[in-house]
Amino acid sequence: MEDIALCPKFEAAFELLGKRWTGLIIRVMLQGRRRFSDISGMIPHLSDRMLVERLKELEAAEIVTRHVYPDMPIRVEYELTMKGQELAPVLDQVQEWANKWYQTLHH
Amino acid sequence: MEDIALCPKFEAAFELLGKRWTGLIIRVMLQGRRRFSDISGMIPHLSDRMLVERLKELEAAEIVTRHVYPDMPIRVEYELTMKGQELAPVLDQVQEWANKWYQTLHH
Repeated sequence: MEDIALCPKFEAAFELLGKRWTGLIIRVMLQGRRRFSDISGMIPHLSDRMLVERLKELEAAEIVTRHVYPDMPIRVEYELTMKGQELAPVLDQVQEWANKWYQTLHH
Repeated sequence: MEDIALCPKFEAAFELLGKRWTGLIIRVMLQGRRRFSDISGMIPHLSDRMLVERLKELEAAEIVTRHVYPDMPIRVEYELTMKGQELAPVLDQVQEWANKWYQTLHH
């Protein structure tokens, strides 16, 4: 049984994307630049603490960038990088699969 | 900010697929029916205990079926269901994205 060239990239990408809420956060941000409160407002049950954590991970993975505006009070907006936007087909495929098979999806 | 119809199916599917090793296990099984030792042999660092757990989850989610042959000793093989096989495009998209962006993927 040859050990097919199992790709660490594949596993790393899956792990990053598979974290709880990450898929939804990226999907919300595919609609454009968002403030923290916009994102948290659109995802019920997502705590602010968890959103802070996920945004940090996504920034570290260069999937999200943060824009800080020196208004009073300062304004912070989050945006998907090109790398983040190119996740759209992945999310679409997951949605398509889930739509077809959802009723048999068990928790 | 309208609360776009955020799809629990989407989140559930992402969570299921995003669990550590699940993507790789499905990818290995896309090549056909496999025995436990085949799967574990093809995925370095994956413990048997973890593989047992993941296969149980995938069976519960009807992504994998188990075939037991009354040989001596009995033989057990695992196979993707249609639902499991239709994950191929999702895995392909993740691989494509990871290939392009991998060098900027941070852990």
